Amino acid sequence: MALVNEHFLKLPNNYFFSDVEKKVNSFKVTHPKADLIRLGTGDVILPLPQACIEAMHRAVDEMGHESTFRGYGPEAGYPFLINAIIKHDYNPRGVHLEPSEIFVSDGSKSDTGNIGDILRHDNSIGVTDPIYPVYIDSNVSCGRAGELLADGKWSNVVYMPCLPENDFIPQLPKQRVDIIYLCYPNNPTGTVLSKAELRKWVNYALENDTLLIFDGAYEAYIQHPDIPHSIYEIKGAKKVAIEFRSFSKTAGFTGVRCGYTVIPKELTGGTLAGKRIPLTPLWRRHQETKFNGTSYITQRGAEAIYTPEGKEQVKAHIQYYMNNAQLMKRALTSIGLKTAGGEDAPYLWVKAPDGLSSWKFFEKLLYEAQVVTTPGVGFGPNGEGYLRLTAFGKKERIQEAMQRLCQCL
Amino acid sequence: MALVNEHFLKLPNNYFFSDVEKKVNSFKVTHPKADLIRLGTGDVILPLPQACIEAMHRAVDEMGHESTFRGYGPEAGYPFLINAIIKHDYNPRGVHLEPSEIFVSDGSKSDTGNIGDILRHDNSIGVTDPIYPVYIDSNVSCGRAGELLADGKWSNVVYMPCLPENDFIPQLPKQRVDIIYLCYPNNPTGTVLSKAELRKWVNYALENDTLLIFDGAYEAYIQHPDIPHSIYEIKGAKKVAIEFRSFSKTAGFTGVRCGYTVIPKELTGGTLAGKRIPLTPLWRRHQETKFNGTSYITQRGAEAIYTPEGKEQVKAHIQYYMNNAQLMKRALTSIGLKTAGGEDAPYLWVKAPDGLSSWKFFEKLLYEAQVVTTPGVGFGPNGEGYLRLTAFGKKERIQEAMQRLCQCL
Repeated sequence: MALVNEHFLKLPNNYFFSDVEKKVNSFKVTHPKADLIRLGTGDVILPLPQACIEAMHRAVDEMGHESTFRGYGPEAGYPFLINAIIKHDYNPRGVHLEPSEIFVSDGSKSDTGNIGDILRHDNSIGVTDPIYPVYIDSNVSCGRAGELLADGKWSNVVYMPCLPENDFIPQLPKQRVDIIYLCYPNNPTGTVLSKAELRKWVNYALENDTLLIFDGAYEAYIQHPDIPHSIYEIKGAKKVAIEFRSFSKTAGFTGVRCGYTVIPKELTGGTLAGKRIPLTPLWRRHQETKFNGTSYITQRGAEAIYTPEGKEQVKAHIQYYMNNAQLMKRALTSIGLKTAGGEDAPYLWVKAPDGLSSWKFFEKLLYEAQVVTTPGVGFGPNGEGYLRLTAFGKKERIQEAMQRLCQCL
Repeated sequence: MALVNEHFLKLPNNYFFSDVEKKVNSFKVTHPKADLIRLGTGDVILPLPQACIEAMHRAVDEMGHESTFRGYGPEAGYPFLINAIIKHDYNPRGVHLEPSEIFVSDGSKSDTGNIGDILRHDNSIGVTDPIYPVYIDSNVSCGRAGELLADGKWSNVVYMPCLPENDFIPQLPKQRVDIIYLCYPNNPTGTVLSKAELRKWVNYALENDTLLIFDGAYEAYIQHPDIPHSIYEIKGAKKVAIEFRSFSKTAGFTGVRCGYTVIPKELTGGTLAGKRIPLTPLWRRHQETKFNGTSYITQRGAEAIYTPEGKEQVKAHIQYYMNNAQLMKRALTSIGLKTAGGEDAPYLWVKAPDGLSSWKFFEKLLYEAQVVTTPGVGFGPNGEGYLRLTAFGKKERIQEAMQRLCQCL
């Protein structure tokens, strides 16, 4: 009998977001006429920027003619997209990268999930708490997270609490950790790290020989000019950090699937015997073996984000969502709720009133205001007592949702 | 220091197809005016079927309007595509599947590479020799293949030779093996398995509690009516086999990226303690954690393959390539070369004359006929002394290539 990877059996039965959907569905069955407003799952609602649409039409046409048809592309992405990324996302911020350090993919979820494949199964892991659950689950399923303890934590994971006491900014762990996940702007708390705060992490990593997994999926939402957009803006970061970027939230690519991963050539891991091994060729080998490139049509769409028109259109989308976030923050604050985030990220992290649990607060808003949110406890033990609200909605609907919340609370 | 997965370091430095490209490039440098004809890497050349192009244009338009925009889709694919797959690829052959048994993805390379994630690292592996190298490499990189031995074989892999003596049809292994990879129509030999031959494998798997990994990427090329298109045409196969399918070679999707994996609900693996675990939910959990669905635009393109016009257009493409294969087989046979395949697959497996090695024969054809092929030894030790030729080319160029080969040999 072929044996299964039993680490998979340790995963909670259902993916957290599916549990939320089940609760929503059972509400819908009993309230078939309810007018639900969704501020839950972080999916965008605005259509793709027109520049991307036009570029993808052109690419589809190319695929329909023999002289312009493209078959297998480079596993790590076409040079036209890689060069646009370097020129527009990095050079203006003083970061210089080589094309061989960029890996285009079908999205950050694949990359943050699969990056563990090139690392030993027994490295120790550090995560902020709360955290995007995929980071944990991908480590659980290969055994790296260890065993689930009674307190809901995993035995080989160091948790760095993000609480009101520390303004939801994690503190450096007291012990050495091999690999630390950081997501900034943060999902779910919507907070950001200043340059000084981010420098602390890079310095910790340099001193402790720690690998930083830096997820910058929400980078485009940064509004304050002094917040770093890339971890490589910090000196020394190329020696310690992998950065993940996504076009999903930047340009509405959640259904089109494109992102990229940066692995600088200075970045190394080690063998048990102490030899240093560059990670760039390891990841290249991984992608050559277990991936076959991103759709040409998709890559042409992503390239269009960097044209002058594309940039304007993306900026307008981001502004639309961030206006929503401001509106939400004002409304929630006006009724005495405590919120973090929402200034440089499309997420608000809302404290439940009256000591309610995440799920109780979630159900209260679902049943009394017909507003769907995400229970904070799904993001880790320190998410208990919070909800995550997202600004990805139509302005009018968000206004309506805020009115309902103000009435019901 | 974060430790790397040292199994990756066991992989030969370069992916085999890159080595071929390097040889071709160095030829081009010294022969800048040479008119190379490529019968090597298995990439298609005909543009996408018009039905797919039209469907993708429509989908791109949908993504540009708020009312029809689609964000995150189901990780395992949209029902419209899954239902089309069941209705057109399986039901006509007497195979009944449920939508929950189909997983749409960005291609078979990802799926055949990642499927090992849900299986223990110490299952024993059986492969035909020669074989598509990705099956081996993905097992090497997680440690399942064991150590590379002096004879070029891996210690935890059972090799089943495909040689002229057995008409390139592998024989059942004498020992029990946990997981066996089968690819039919076969890459690289171009051979197929009759129903009786395939039944032997299913029965072996049922008797030995073996998991079959069945790659049917070239299914659309089958010409003889009695050759099974799906392993599930064999009784009992749902209990023992995972089937992979790809739109890459069926409809020219190599640059668009779409395929699917079938995991029947009867199929189980085991725990060390002997408990049987269904594999369908395990793979679903894998895809929910480490994948975020295939582009909506791509899935609409794939769906169009199953329309009446799409079917006609696909059929014409397949016929074009298979006419090439016939032409090649006739020409090669006429000059006394021994060939397998080319009747139900776009590949020909050609024995090098005069005891030449694969690389020597490759270089001879490159330098004397300016024809690029693939050295058989890249597919395993028993590929030594062979070349793989593919029928993916323009008819006129293939004719020209055959003339040059006839002159130079």
